[in-house]
Order: sequence, then structure tokens, then C-alpha cells
Amino acid sequence: MSIHGKTMLPYIVRKVFEIQHKLYQQQIRACSTGRLQEALKIEEEQEFPKINEIKQPEESSFYYPVDKKFKHDPDIGEQFSYSQLRVRLAGPHQLQPKPEADDLQFGKLFTDHMFKVAYHKRLGGWQVPEIMPLENLVLHPAAKVLHYAVELFEGMKAFRGVDGRIRLFRPEMNMARMNASAQRSGLPTFEPEEFVKCISRLVSIDQEWVPHTESASLYIRPTLIGIEPTLGVASSESALLYTILSPVGGYFAGNSGTSTGVSLLADPQYTRSWPGGVGDRKMGSNYAPTIHVQKEASKQGFQQVLWLYGDDHQLTEVGTMNIFVLLINDRGERELVTPPLNGLILPGIVRHSILNLAREWNQVKVTERKITMAEVKKLVYENRVLEMFGAGTACVVSPIERIFYMNENLLIPTMENSDAVWRTMRNTLLDIQYGRVKHPWAIEID
Amino acid sequence: MSIHGKTMLPYIVRKVFEIQHKLYQQQIRACSTGRLQEALKIEEEQEFPKINEIKQPEESSFYYPVDKKFKHDPDIGEQFSYSQLRVRLAGPHQLQPKPEADDLQFGKLFTDHMFKVAYHKRLGGWQVPEIMPLENLVLHPAAKVLHYAVELFEGMKAFRGVDGRIRLFRPEMNMARMNASAQRSGLPTFEPEEFVKCISRLVSIDQEWVPHTESASLYIRPTLIGIEPTLGVASSESALLYTILSPVGGYFAGNSGTSTGVSLLADPQYTRSWPGGVGDRKMGSNYAPTIHVQKEASKQGFQQVLWLYGDDHQLTEVGTMNIFVLLINDRGERELVTPPLNGLILPGIVRHSILNLAREWNQVKVTERKITMAEVKKLVYENRVLEMFGAGTACVVSPIERIFYMNENLLIPTMENSDAVWRTMRNTLLDIQYGRVKHPWAIEID
Repeated sequence: MSIHGKTMLPYIVRKVFEIQHKLYQQQIRACSTGRLQEALKIEEEQEFPKINEIKQPEESSFYYPVDKKFKHDPDIGEQFSYSQLRVRLAGPHQLQPKPEADDLQFGKLFTDHMFKVAYHKRLGGWQVPEIMPLENLVLHPAAKVLHYAVELFEGMKAFRGVDGRIRLFRPEMNMARMNASAQRSGLPTFEPEEFVKCISRLVSIDQEWVPHTESASLYIRPTLIGIEPTLGVASSESALLYTILSPVGGYFAGNSGTSTGVSLLADPQYTRSWPGGVGDRKMGSNYAPTIHVQKEASKQGFQQVLWLYGDDHQLTEVGTMNIFVLLINDRGERELVTPPLNGLILPGIVRHSILNLAREWNQVKVTERKITMAEVKKLVYENRVLEMFGAGTACVVSPIERIFYMNENLLIPTMENSDAVWRTMRNTLLDIQYGRVKHPWAIEID
Repeated sequence: MSIHGKTMLPYIVRKVFEIQHKLYQQQIRACSTGRLQEALKIEEEQEFPKINEIKQPEESSFYYPVDKKFKHDPDIGEQFSYSQLRVRLAGPHQLQPKPEADDLQFGKLFTDHMFKVAYHKRLGGWQVPEIMPLENLVLHPAAKVLHYAVELFEGMKAFRGVDGRIRLFRPEMNMARMNASAQRSGLPTFEPEEFVKCISRLVSIDQEWVPHTESASLYIRPTLIGIEPTLGVASSESALLYTILSPVGGYFAGNSGTSTGVSLLADPQYTRSWPGGVGDRKMGSNYAPTIHVQKEASKQGFQQVLWLYGDDHQLTEVGTMNIFVLLINDRGERELVTPPLNGLILPGIVRHSILNLAREWNQVKVTERKITMAEVKKLVYENRVLEMFGAGTACVVSPIERIFYMNENLLIPTMENSDAVWRTMRNTLLDIQYGRVKHPWAIEID
């Protein structure tokens, strides 16, 4: 066989599978209700465990008050409201072609429209909110965001459900966290409900960008930046709140996040956050210092960083996710452990939801407590660590296979168990997000 | 007397003094050499202590290697050079009126031109550097700088000397620190000398913006931001290095920084940096988390924050400055103490210069060591703290008068001593910066 022949055959086989997969996805889309969907659902249920009966879990308190009556600082000025929203639609020539859902990478492509609202203290507060064609931002080179990292963001997703409807997942929690980040950054707060309505309208306008598949979604990036054009480390009296949308597949290139687990570098010389800092806010300043460390981890062949804190090497986060450990405790029980919200850890919405679900499910003991590398290591030696996984909006649940810590590889058997808790959690969340079950966490936006 | 009369009189008096001061400054300008200048110099020497004979101090090693042969990462690509610089001058209608030197606030006004050079990895590295009329930056809303704080900066000054010539102060140290910040941020490094030449050219072009007075200077803000328009916490493969200029008076509004000392809030619940973090780099991410704390301090009536670290409440920095304490040690010697460069502290160039000068001066013992609030408190009680001051580019040396710590006011007699060390250091540095003495640290740019 020629070299040409050698390379062509696998290519053709792959292409056939690709086309098959696309047809299969199109069938799902076509049959938003009906027999096929039911059949697929049963198939999935056989394949992956789920929590069969999802009740509305009793809410444990979230870190930030999720409350419609948000308490703004007294000098904040005028709020913006959805009723003021102006919409300027892109012309036909401005519309971009939609990508194939299978080709999506994380955060590389953006939709046709964006949302934008400015804040100027000297003009009385928030200005008129607007949806417009996606455009560049024009910033003074002294804008505070460019010098002092006066910036924060949120990560949300819109899902196209099996019924064709588009849903957000607990958006009120993102809003509560975003306002908390704003207060900590000296930036103006906003009315949570009004902003959710504006975001929903934006997603509606770009609804054809919400992928028609359950392997992808539309990532939503609300962003708040300080744009006052003066040097000097101080509150920004002008700000810009905007939102862009990006259709996304898996977060990690070449890894759907569930076929194999990720490998972690746990190097105690690096710290993500510290007491008296802002590790519990989604501020830009928490991320820049991690890039170099992530690069180091990649160079050494690891996919993510396991962030440790303190002389006792407490686990805090993994990459940009919260971390969970399923272990067998001293009383022989299966215990699902995640570090507590002590200021070092981002209060994740997927984290919170997993805690809600797992407590409702009641099949494992659920604990928010400190867990150290010494404990993990000891339990790995005794075969008592069953699973480890990350949890976050971008990848939902991401299983962990290996940790490199103090010149030692700790193998975690996360992928070895067919009825793993991480799969149960992941599939239950996906069921809610893609509307396979009715649940109050999933908000239909149309 | 009428109310009108009551308010008018001080106004007139102040105006007379202002006009006198301006005339006085103009005289200095007019007489770049000559008798008046000599006379003034003698007057000043009588008024304020200085180190009379400044030799070139023996260099103690700076934190970052200050070396012409900077070691770039191998995949950095092409460097930019001064010889490539393109200059596009502002038209006459684009030129702004220059402000009165006495009216200057910190960082509110900018000059007519800026410097800009882009980096694109896929285009082979650094692009063509350019000086152009000051203009807004156009950034994609997904630019990494706006989400993950991929940004860093430097603070430098150009001084108009008593001889009318313009000088920079140890610019090679800013460049070394900036490259170190870039490496830690996953941003591209540059050739230090080439960038200094470009900055010098920019200052030359806007030379009429360098205030004609020794109470003001031209602040230089080199800035490096990551502009790759993709979400995902990772190195930015595109970047923008730019420089803007701002004529500045004192850093603190309504306080020249030397007539009265500043008051500090020392609240151990807030931390500026921590081991394993980036407190020793001039990255934007170090500043955003401090704004809220500074706001708190202001609300409580304090001018600056004294940053503490650890359970023993070590002093680290004050506001955005390094901190010095002059005390009488257990051996009865005057000892000038500053915290060591242990990763928690920005390696300040003024800090380094004060250490150089004080060691050369040899009138006080000079120590880089940990100092805690317990020690400061004890020594204040025993009247053994003589002075405390901040040191930084923006305010050179800033005396401290009071620290509020754990519900207690600690009064520091910094302002009470007429031949204070802080004045000696400040005046010696100003002598060098304004060319009253010849010194290799002051680089003439024209």
C-alpha cells in the first residue's frame, strides 16, 4: 500500500464516523419529543448512572445572598432596567456563519451580538443598556482596567434542551456573585433581575448560535471593567458592563473531559489565594498569576494545576474548578469531601449544586471540610480514595486520574468505577441543563 | 467685615503667594546656570539636610538582573529595535494646552503623544514600534487583559533639571523589573535598551510637557497588556506594549507629601501578597484587590493602608510604596530597617536607591529584615521609633505620622526632627533627579 493509501484509510473511516455522528445529532434535534428521544434516554440511563428521582433539593445557604432586593451602596446612582434596553440588530452582511458543533473549541468564536451598558458616576449612574452587533471596545490607554486589573466576570451557559428550548442554569447565583465581586473591586453594582433579562434577550437574539446538540452549549461571559482614564490606584468612577457569547464544546482541547481523567501537578510552591485576599471573588486578578503556573504544568506534561494552600498543603481548587474527593472514611462510609468556603475558594455554582444534589440523594456522606495532601496520600496508599473530580461551569464535572505531588505519582481510580459518583452528578446536572428532566434550576428563556 | 470680605482676604494672600512662586520658578528656569541658582542651592541646603558628598554608591545586587543581555524565552520571536521606530507627530490642532505646574494632580492629564508596539506570535514576534498622537486603544471584548488581568506596568519619571536638561532615573532597573513581570504573566519580553531609547524619544517629543519646576515631573507609564481575543485562562499570544506620559505634582491630593506626614490604617484582616504569589512583580493583579481596602481606610479617615502579613503582623508595604523605619536598636544605634525582598514585597527602585545611599552615607546602620507590629509598638512606647516613611517613584519619600493598629493610635515623631533621615534621603534623591549634583543614576535623555 502506498503512503498515500496508508494515510487515507483512517481518514475515511474517521470521516464516516463523523458523518454518522452528525446525522445522529440531527435526529435528536428533529425529534424534540417522541420515540427516538425516549429510546436514547433509556440507552443513556443504562450507560451512565443518574439520580433517578430529582426532587427540588433543600437549599443550603449560598455564600452570597441570592435575593431580588440587592442592597446597593447609597451613592451608586441610577440603575438600568430591561425596559430601557435598546436593540440594534446586525445587518445580514454582518452575520457570521455558525460553526459545526463538533469543531468547537472553548472561547475562540463569538456570536453576532453583544450587550453593553456604561456607568458614569458624574452622569448619575448607569446609562442606557444596549444590544448591538459585536464590536471592539474603545478604551483610553489610561483606563484603570488596563493598569490595576479593575475587572471581574462571570461564566454561565445557555443550553438547547432536548425539547428545543433554551435554558440558563441558576443565573441568579451568577448575578449574586458578580455583584459581590463588583463591591470588592470598587465597581458599581446592578439589579440582578434586570441584567438576567438583558442577557436572556441577547441569547434569544443569537439563539441560532446555541448549538443543536447535547455535547455543546453557548457560553455566556458577563464582564465588568473600570474604564476611568486616570492613573492612581483608586475606585473607577466609570465602568462598562458587557456580555459576549461564545458557542463552546469541551473546555480542554482534545478531551471531552469524560473519556479519560485529567492529570494534575500539585506544587506547594505556588498559591492561588490567601486569607485576606480575594480568592472568593471572580475578579480578573485571581487569574493572571495562575497562567505561568499552568504553563509550567503543561511543560511538565500535566493538564491542570492542583492548587494547595498552607504548610499542611490543603487542597483548594483544581485549574479553575472546585475540587471534590470521594473517599472511604474511618467509619467505612463513602464520604464526598470538598474544601469549605473559607475565603480561599471560589463559591462555585456547580459546586453548590453538587452539594445540593448529593445531600438530597443521600447515598454518600457529604462534607465541606479541609482536606490535605497528607490525608489524600495516605488514603491513596490504602486504596480508600475512590474518585476525585473538578466541578465548574466550563466543564461541568471533570474526572481526575493522577496527581503528581512531591516527586510522586498518586493514581486516582476515578475512571475505573462504572457507577461512579462523578458520572451520577454529571449526568444529573446535564439532565437538568438539557431539559431531560423538569427542574427549577433550569430557567427557560424563551 | 462682610462674609465676602472674610473669604476674599485669604484668597488674595494665597494668590499673591502663588504668583510669587511662579515668578520664582521662572527665575530658576531662566538662570540655568549662574548666581541665582547657586544662591538658591545654598538656601536649600540650609533649610534641608542632604548627603553632602554623594559618591557613586557600591551597588548591592538588585532583585532582578540588570543586564544588557536579557535572556528571552527561546520561542519569543523577533525583537523590536529603536532603529525601526516610526514617528507620526500630532498636527497643531491636536496639541493640548499645557497645565500650570501648580495645578497638577496625579495621572489625570496626558501629553500629546504615546508609544505603541504590538506583539503577535503568529506574525513572528514584535512588530514595528511607533510614536503617534495619543489615541484610544481598540480592543476585542474578549481580549485577555479585560478578563484575566493579563497586564503589568512600570512607573518612571522624567525630571527637568536645574540646568534645563531632562533626565530619567535608573531606567534600566524599571526595564529589568518589567521583563520579570512579563515572564511571570506569560507575556513577551523585550530588549531593555531599545525600549528605553523609544521612551526617551517619546519624552523628547513631548519635552514641553516636562514641568519647568522642581516640584513636579513627567510621570512615564510603560504598560504591557495581553490582547489575544479568546476566552480561556492561558498565555496571550498577542500583546501590546505602550507608554503614556502624564505631568504630575504630588501623589496625594492636597498634600505635597512632606509638609505633614500621612496617617495609616494597619488592619491585619487584609493582605496584599503572600508566599507563592506575585507580590514581587508589578502586575495589575496586585492592585485591584487593594482598592476596596484603601477605600475603607479613607472612610475611616486614614490616608493610606499599612499592609501587614502573617500571624505576627509583619510590615510589608505602605499604600503602593516600600516602607522604612528608623529606630534605636538594642545596642543604642540608629538603625534604618526595611523589610527584605522575600517575594512579598515589590523591589522598589527608590527603595533600592535609599539602601544604596544610606549604606554609602554610613551615618545609620542599614538593615533589610523582618519587622513586626509588635516590635514597632514596643519601640513606639519606648520612644525608640524616630521616623517612618514610604518610598516610591510617585512620591519619592513620604513621611508617616500615625498608625492606627488594633484600636490604638501609634504616633510616629517623623516630622519632629529637623535633620531627619527621611529628608536627607529625599533631598539627596531630588538633587540627583533634578541635576543639582552630577550622578550616574540620572540619565540625560537629550
